[in-house]
Amino acid sequence: MRLDLPLVDAHCHTVVADSPDRAAFELMLGEADRPAPEGVSYADSLLGLAVRRWCAPILDLSPGTGLDDYLARRESLGPEEVGRRLLGAAGLSHLLVDTGLGNDAGRAGPGEGGGFWSLATLAAASSADVREVVRLESVAERLVDSGVDADDFAQAYVEALRAATREAVGVKSILAYRYGFEIDLSRPSSDEVTLAARGWLDSLRSPDAAADAAAGAGRQVRLDDPVLLRFVLWCGVDRGLPVQVHTGFGDRDLRLPRVNPALLQPFLEAVEPTGTPIVLLHCYPYQRQAGWLAAVYPNVYVDVGLTVSHVGARAQAVLAEFCELAPFGKLLFSTDAYRLPELYAVGVAQFRHAFGALLSTWRHEGAMSAKDAERFARQVGSENARRLYSL
Amino acid sequence: MRLDLPLVDAHCHTVVADSPDRAAFELMLGEADRPAPEGVSYADSLLGLAVRRWCAPILDLSPGTGLDDYLARRESLGPEEVGRRLLGAAGLSHLLVDTGLGNDAGRAGPGEGGGFWSLATLAAASSADVREVVRLESVAERLVDSGVDADDFAQAYVEALRAATREAVGVKSILAYRYGFEIDLSRPSSDEVTLAARGWLDSLRSPDAAADAAAGAGRQVRLDDPVLLRFVLWCGVDRGLPVQVHTGFGDRDLRLPRVNPALLQPFLEAVEPTGTPIVLLHCYPYQRQAGWLAAVYPNVYVDVGLTVSHVGARAQAVLAEFCELAPFGKLLFSTDAYRLPELYAVGVAQFRHAFGALLSTWRHEGAMSAKDAERFARQVGSENARRLYSL
Amino acid sequence: MRLDLPLVDAHCHTVVADSPDRAAFELMLGEADRPAPEGVSYADSLLGLAVRRWCAPILDLSPGTGLDDYLARRESLGPEEVGRRLLGAAGLSHLLVDTGLGNDAGRAGPGEGGGFWSLATLAAASSADVREVVRLESVAERLVDSGVDADDFAQAYVEALRAATREAVGVKSILAYRYGFEIDLSRPSSDEVTLAARGWLDSLRSPDAAADAAAGAGRQVRLDDPVLLRFVLWCGVDRGLPVQVHTGFGDRDLRLPRVNPALLQPFLEAVEPTGTPIVLLHCYPYQRQAGWLAAVYPNVYVDVGLTVSHVGARAQAVLAEFCELAPFGKLLFSTDAYRLPELYAVGVAQFRHAFGALLSTWRHEGAMSAKDAERFARQVGSENARRLYSL
Repeated sequence: MRLDLPLVDAHCHTVVADSPDRAAFELMLGEADRPAPEGVSYADSLLGLAVRRWCAPILDLSPGTGLDDYLARRESLGPEEVGRRLLGAAGLSHLLVDTGLGNDAGRAGPGEGGGFWSLATLAAASSADVREVVRLESVAERLVDSGVDADDFAQAYVEALRAATREAVGVKSILAYRYGFEIDLSRPSSDEVTLAARGWLDSLRSPDAAADAAAGAGRQVRLDDPVLLRFVLWCGVDRGLPVQVHTGFGDRDLRLPRVNPALLQPFLEAVEPTGTPIVLLHCYPYQRQAGWLAAVYPNVYVDVGLTVSHVGARAQAVLAEFCELAPFGKLLFSTDAYRLPELYAVGVAQFRHAFGALLSTWRHEGAMSAKDAERFARQVGSENARRLYSL
Repeated sequence: MRLDLPLVDAHCHTVVADSPDRAAFELMLGEADRPAPEGVSYADSLLGLAVRRWCAPILDLSPGTGLDDYLARRESLGPEEVGRRLLGAAGLSHLLVDTGLGNDAGRAGPGEGGGFWSLATLAAASSADVREVVRLESVAERLVDSGVDADDFAQAYVEALRAATREAVGVKSILAYRYGFEIDLSRPSSDEVTLAARGWLDSLRSPDAAADAAAGAGRQVRLDDPVLLRFVLWCGVDRGLPVQVHTGFGDRDLRLPRVNPALLQPFLEAVEPTGTPIVLLHCYPYQRQAGWLAAVYPNVYVDVGLTVSHVGARAQAVLAEFCELAPFGKLLFSTDAYRLPELYAVGVAQFRHAFGALLSTWRHEGAMSAKDAERFARQVGSENARRLYSL
Repeated sequence: MRLDLPLVDAHCHTVVADSPDRAAFELMLGEADRPAPEGVSYADSLLGLAVRRWCAPILDLSPGTGLDDYLARRESLGPEEVGRRLLGAAGLSHLLVDTGLGNDAGRAGPGEGGGFWSLATLAAASSADVREVVRLESVAERLVDSGVDADDFAQAYVEALRAATREAVGVKSILAYRYGFEIDLSRPSSDEVTLAARGWLDSLRSPDAAADAAAGAGRQVRLDDPVLLRFVLWCGVDRGLPVQVHTGFGDRDLRLPRVNPALLQPFLEAVEPTGTPIVLLHCYPYQRQAGWLAAVYPNVYVDVGLTVSHVGARAQAVLAEFCELAPFGKLLFSTDAYRLPELYAVGVAQFRHAFGALLSTWRHEGAMSAKDAERFARQVGSENARRLYSL
């Protein structure tokens, strides 16, 4: 079946304003953060093939055009035109943008700062309604420069989060990158938070850190204290908006065995009485575990973003695993696009192609009716997100 | 190939005597124990679709009939007729019924107690030979009311288990729900058992517990002491009948990371000299781990029940994963049906359809002969269970 | 597509010189180390079917011939002719043989010792270039008989490894079988190594051990001290040749939950600055985890050996999972054949068939061009290994 309805991209990021060269393009494509060894190209992957397949025609090239020719065409069109074409072709009704990456400086009032597109530019290119998802850890990291002291930290965070999320449709946790889920995730006490804030703020404001900052060494403000990570997560829950939680693969900054979403069970149970929905992002290779969580916890949802793009031609097989236990009313499409506008186009094309083919297969073998298939396509591609994020 | 031989249902439960309404039906269908949120239906799942596909025709409706119409027809036929049709159509030669669920009160002499069908009613509806599988934890829980004291607990348990299993073909452990497998599973000493029994019995017979019981608060007798759980498990091993062990998914009462059957390796090695077979139930999403265990431990078997029903249209793909390493002589069919007679019909239909299609595919691509395919169908569908459970 | 290029078998072992009877053949086929129970045959598995499918024609029988007839034909041809045919038909350009199994005694100067084929005989039968991979633990175990004392152990090991690897193309770690990866894998200090060597050597040279050895009880020299295991692993890294690491399934001597290659992340990061490549062998059922590691760590490679043979008709599905995230330049073919020459023939045939079919499918559905498919076939089947092992 043709799955051509306008989609809600329920988790994505901004894109770079410049034209990357081949080396940079290959790194922006995947999750590696340093060059491949001699003889290996990151673009020789299912994701790289998917870019050549789906994006080349949008730039007037044949599907499958080689990467050098693709990048030459990209260069000749210029990054603005490339971005406009790739985002414009995607057919997205909404972009729910995690502003904690790329556009951080411009979050309060998005501009073209830092070499990334503003939310306004994203909106213009995609003709979509752009809404914000606020990264919980970033709000804490931005507090450091405000001079807040430890005793006031908790209150200041709650206020900062309220201000930051005034227009937001959701919040996001990257605990997966800072600690993983093999940790007590209960709500910390006020005293614990104050104590932890003191330790964290002191370390950032030590003479050494100040000297580094003064020397332009780019002080690394990174929330990694486990008590504070739990604290901001629970502030997110209290805020009442859906909480997107990074689970499963990503870049090497996480430990894969510790980001299995099933490790979140005690947390999911603790959250349940609040009624706040939890959205498990990505999940791979734990998509089956995630499907089970969505089947047994009413407030748990699963977002297929990142995974569907990265596994390219395998998207149909992997999407099928997401569907094994999860009710269709709990599954959400997203691209998790970041840096390259190609990742918007690929995420969308791969989902339309693969989920469409999956539903068709099931329909033709008698597992569902045409009406069911259409309904599930609408749910996963759009309606679930509209309902969950109140779009 | 048509896989139409009579099947042995090697692990199943009784069904409810009444007609559930839509909300109750949706909950009985899957593993959730509380309602889905607004806008989500548990029946919009591969399992829900499988019910509409396979059961509707048995109730004279078109395959895929919507759930409301299906339930209306169900209501008009009445629960007895529905149960007779769904169980009767299944083509089962044997039902090995775990009596620890639903029919607990009626175990010694099954009646229509508690709103569940008796074993006799199950037998009449299915025209199958109904045999019992005794839940190890339930035998201990029933001992509490006998007034046994801690010093006599071990001996009393052994005698109660012997009495309870006089006619049984197997025993079953739900350690997965009480503790999981990340635990020392060696046989406890007599002193350890007595000490643990004292603690457990005292807690159940405390003035508070007695007051609760007197107030009709339904004292929860739940064996969850880890020493006693190990003890009853080893009594099950000593009994010599096959020990069915719940592994993998189920309801949210278990922690999914702790029920990976591969965590049982030390236990499987300790059991091996006794010769008692261990049957790993369900296994999902650890079916590949289970297949490896069956390939390297002579006394380990794998039962595909629950999984094959719940993943619906994905049953062929998931069954294929079970087969990757496990010898065909180690795989067992079951439905794990419980509460809804639909789960008998779906489990059987899904298995016949999916395993038949899998064997056909392999035969047509040259991976096995027609004779091999027929032999494996007989083994997994019937012969392995007949041999293992001495039917 | 026909994937008929000469392949590099990047990880394999020697084969037995004699004709096994049926019971021995069944055990040599798989990973079980003791007989199957009554009514079960290990040959009734996807691997057993693959042997009958691919090897029977090489012995002039119809594909799928029953095992008894197959073994009778095998017997009549004699083990030398059988080995010559099965290895000769494989079309291998190189065999990278782990000499730590089977041929251990003959490692320094391979002979027909111990009932196994020498490297020279393997080379003659396969018409391939045979190169050695040295097992790190074996080098330490052989040191015991040299009378080295604990203070000199570290230096003696380094020298012994240098001597043993003079002609080798790689080294191999079987830490998976001795401890698994849930362990601190940092480089131990000199003092730690000396202390651990003292403990290990003393235990092996105790009067009890000596008496056992004198009584012909076959003293078990098995390196299992965790400090020494870390030490030899790091000596392997320092040697600079690619380090093959057993991960995932194998025989029951390993604990499956502890051999997930993703548990190696801290080790992989510690190795990275040295530039030494790490090759994750087998990986199943963690092939997706392995693919991610290959995608984010430049020096990490993935070898599909053992897995592709053992899952038989499922090889295409499992290979597809390997490819989901791993760049094609990081994937390596091997058979991991051991004891039975059938495992060479099956590993090769299954790979040519399954990877060829996978690439064809992707090509026909438009996911890659014919040119890409041919390039990936060459890379995975040969070029990656040639580049990595400097063949």
